[in-house]
Amino acid sequence: MLAGRFFIHTAKETPSEAEIISHRLMLRAGLVRQLASGIYSWLPAGWRVVNKIANIVREEMDAAGAAEIFMPAVQPAALWEESGRWHAYGPELLRFADRHKRDFCLGPTHEEVVTDIVRAFVSGHRQLPFNLYQIQTKFRDEIRPRFGIMRAREFVMKDAYSFDVDEDGMRASYESMRRAYCRIFDRIGLHYRMVEADSGAIGGSSSHEFMVLADSGEEVILYAGDYAANVERASCSPPTGERPPQAEVMQKVHTPGVKTIETLSAFLADAAVPAHRNIKTMLIKGDNGAAALLLQGGHTLNLVKAEAQSAVGANAALLPPAEAKALTGADFGSLGPVNMPLPVIADYGLLHSVDMICGANENDYHYTGVNFGRDCPEPVFADLRNAVAGDPSPDGAGTLSACRGIEVGHIFQLGDKYSRSMSATVELPGGGTQPIMMGCYGIGVTRIVAAAIEQGHDEQGIIFPAAIAPFTAVVAPIGWGKSAAVRQAAEALYDDLRAAGVDVLLDNRDLRPGAMFAEIDLLGIPHRLVIGERGLAAGEVEYKYRAAKQAEAVPLVTAVAWLRQKISHSI
Amino acid sequence: MLAGRFFIHTAKETPSEAEIISHRLMLRAGLVRQLASGIYSWLPAGWRVVNKIANIVREEMDAAGAAEIFMPAVQPAALWEESGRWHAYGPELLRFADRHKRDFCLGPTHEEVVTDIVRAFVSGHRQLPFNLYQIQTKFRDEIRPRFGIMRAREFVMKDAYSFDVDEDGMRASYESMRRAYCRIFDRIGLHYRMVEADSGAIGGSSSHEFMVLADSGEEVILYAGDYAANVERASCSPPTGERPPQAEVMQKVHTPGVKTIETLSAFLADAAVPAHRNIKTMLIKGDNGAAALLLQGGHTLNLVKAEAQSAVGANAALLPPAEAKALTGADFGSLGPVNMPLPVIADYGLLHSVDMICGANENDYHYTGVNFGRDCPEPVFADLRNAVAGDPSPDGAGTLSACRGIEVGHIFQLGDKYSRSMSATVELPGGGTQPIMMGCYGIGVTRIVAAAIEQGHDEQGIIFPAAIAPFTAVVAPIGWGKSAAVRQAAEALYDDLRAAGVDVLLDNRDLRPGAMFAEIDLLGIPHRLVIGERGLAAGEVEYKYRAAKQAEAVPLVTAVAWLRQKISHSI
Repeated sequence: MLAGRFFIHTAKETPSEAEIISHRLMLRAGLVRQLASGIYSWLPAGWRVVNKIANIVREEMDAAGAAEIFMPAVQPAALWEESGRWHAYGPELLRFADRHKRDFCLGPTHEEVVTDIVRAFVSGHRQLPFNLYQIQTKFRDEIRPRFGIMRAREFVMKDAYSFDVDEDGMRASYESMRRAYCRIFDRIGLHYRMVEADSGAIGGSSSHEFMVLADSGEEVILYAGDYAANVERASCSPPTGERPPQAEVMQKVHTPGVKTIETLSAFLADAAVPAHRNIKTMLIKGDNGAAALLLQGGHTLNLVKAEAQSAVGANAALLPPAEAKALTGADFGSLGPVNMPLPVIADYGLLHSVDMICGANENDYHYTGVNFGRDCPEPVFADLRNAVAGDPSPDGAGTLSACRGIEVGHIFQLGDKYSRSMSATVELPGGGTQPIMMGCYGIGVTRIVAAAIEQGHDEQGIIFPAAIAPFTAVVAPIGWGKSAAVRQAAEALYDDLRAAGVDVLLDNRDLRPGAMFAEIDLLGIPHRLVIGERGLAAGEVEYKYRAAKQAEAVPLVTAVAWLRQKISHSI
Repeated sequence: MLAGRFFIHTAKETPSEAEIISHRLMLRAGLVRQLASGIYSWLPAGWRVVNKIANIVREEMDAAGAAEIFMPAVQPAALWEESGRWHAYGPELLRFADRHKRDFCLGPTHEEVVTDIVRAFVSGHRQLPFNLYQIQTKFRDEIRPRFGIMRAREFVMKDAYSFDVDEDGMRASYESMRRAYCRIFDRIGLHYRMVEADSGAIGGSSSHEFMVLADSGEEVILYAGDYAANVERASCSPPTGERPPQAEVMQKVHTPGVKTIETLSAFLADAAVPAHRNIKTMLIKGDNGAAALLLQGGHTLNLVKAEAQSAVGANAALLPPAEAKALTGADFGSLGPVNMPLPVIADYGLLHSVDMICGANENDYHYTGVNFGRDCPEPVFADLRNAVAGDPSPDGAGTLSACRGIEVGHIFQLGDKYSRSMSATVELPGGGTQPIMMGCYGIGVTRIVAAAIEQGHDEQGIIFPAAIAPFTAVVAPIGWGKSAAVRQAAEALYDDLRAAGVDVLLDNRDLRPGAMFAEIDLLGIPHRLVIGERGLAAGEVEYKYRAAKQAEAVPLVTAVAWLRQKISHSI
């Protein structure tokens, strides 16, 4: 590629609206340009990166036996009504009517469409298993798009869907995708971790996320040895050992204006009260009823766990303050398990707690010296909270550490969630029919560009993994406009590298060296070959690897072979 | 690729809703499945065809120096208001509001977005010229989608935009694209013609369409020698020679109930009146006023020409009947130039007409023996009609013939239509600024699939050009489930072909030969290699070319080399 017509437009200024480094560098390097909030055009260098990622994804999906399809962006409401998601999906689903007043949406995902295709063609078990995937533009109307293409409204995703006769088949398809995903992220050159995750709005029984590790990541990962899970998913075990003997008598204390555990400790002049003796009481309500949940002070509620562990039913949420007061007589901050009219469930973190402090279900009053089974009924104990660093690992080996990650892939065992509601069934070998067992598998193709930059950058700009850099190498001539010898040598090297299969850019824009090198570094091109009159006189070209500090001289005659070797050894 | 997981689902029945052969065959072959009116999912075999077309397009665009980008499908109303198209574009522009009630549309084309990108980055003449293109999903809310993906609402298009300092540059960019388009359609293997065309809603000064020739095409092409134009564009010259002397006296004839030239001829018992003596009078109105247009009986009005040749202004359309009657006193069918209160413009086809018949501007009356300059003023003469086969060629060489075509590409010299309204300007070498000169260049990537099938099919199904067939070759084993020898030989041949770079399918589904061959033929795979026990015993494989009638035996040991030679010689 010749730089002169390649629409390279970089900026020295750091754009003020960009909060994270990848967003700043993508704008400065001219990889993207914002069209509207959360909607970006991909410019030539950026789009080459996306295509290199997409091609790796495509090759590994094909190698795993998946077949590529292409489903529409515009989807009819009728299908989403069949699955129940037309009403269940929030305002992220952009809905509109066509000129004939028929309802449609812009697809944020394609479970409904692919299930509709499959039920039209598949009826017998011999037609299974198979896996259909696409690389396609999706739209989610995020309320607050941010971080550039990291959380955009329009983005490119690879989504795949597997179809099997039974659960064993589904698990085998899932395992095949898990391996394909590891190959994909390995080939791209990312530092990532596969973590246990919740299935969330997509549904299904089991899921894993692929997280690119970066301090700027929105997700918290907890890990120890081979175990890793996102913070919502990591389970907490009950403590071992015994509950110590109780020592205090329950007392009611007047605590005017105290609403938080911090102010309570100050008020009681007892800053040394350990967290496990402070009870945080939260009320939740789901489709089936309400419950009071008790946590250690300092722990945070995990609503997904709470919904699963309590009997409140689906769509659990914190009880609105007015409802909470009507039920208990007190405001938030003055709640507690003593004389609580709702069923009480306590987190494992309180299993061995004695002589506790809690609200008295009466504003401006707390109890101290509270003990389960004496001052209130012994509650049911369960895992209700988010795990934190320092917790024992759920697999029993070691202690959890925490890091942050960027979700770039998510795989789900859907089971029959969509096939049952949409009647996608298969005739079994032994007779009878049952819903097809599905899995679904997503990769955020455009998001990977940002994630890779979060992992790879320095003061000069982006350091792309070689597999996804906009160009693998660049021939940078000094004095293009002045020296015919430089021009000829640069063009000859460029031609030779292209003939050798190297993805190379020739910078024919006649820029000053400083400006040219700054752009090359900003764009994150891994291998730079500088041709100038002085080097030519010595029969040399100057080579520099993007991530290295020093350049080195290489004989021009062997430069092609030498660079090919460098490329094969770099990631 | 292994057929077993490739989601091949063909049908023997001809779908009743499909009107043209390409639509029928695409549904029967399972290339696409309709999701909603004019909205289709591409299934694996169909999507391979699309990708092969897209790759040829991409290679030739890159070779022509264009840089690939990717612009959003969802576009903000504000940009379209800048260009004036938010209001000018009809209901094909699907408009909607996002969750924050901001107006957006689904992009049917990207002139506004690309112009916005360019004006953000480009200011100096040294930054030009360049050409940006994308292969992207577009949406046009057609009122009546039909013919399958031929006139779909959602479709894949390649659109490119060139940017030059001046008109000479724009014309050079246009010429470079014209050549690239010819290479693209040549490589795909289509029979096509480049024709002069109107610029229509896109605007600009000059444009050409690339038409795939097919009887089912919606467009009429007129051609002679090197000249070709679509019917709207082909110009008609004034006849040479002199007007003959007039012979008749004008007479008013009572013609009760006569509204058409056919019934008039019958009524006057003069079936031999030649067309050029019958005047058809039509009234049109544009933004600036109305006019009466005269044509030969049998000729059809060309509104684009009429708008350009009359002074009625933009948005010309036929006058509504009530307005026509209010102006002239008569209904359609009784109009004529005698005592016409509007300016009269006559088509060149009447330049040498004498002793004519026309309506009397009074219901149930006609005039005969009418002569221009005597019975009514000599009108202005101009080119107002659609050309027809038999007309002299506008370039003076020969006589026009007519054929039908499918538009698969369209290139435009836009000039400053968008750059002026959107203030995309460039500083000139000599100082001062002026709007950038643009061209735009479209290819209907998905439509090409249908156009290729319209050109290539027989009783058995599709005959794809080899360059875009879903697979170049197929290994078809007979007795896959029963014979280990067949299975081993088929797999070995498949592996050898893949190693030799042949795009090959192995049909491992254990179908009966009849069903398997029927699917292969329906899908249009060019090269078929059949492996069976009988052939193996003789060391042979049976080869058949899709378009050939007869199969032939080929030694198994040389089959790979032999097939590669066949492929390199077939289109």
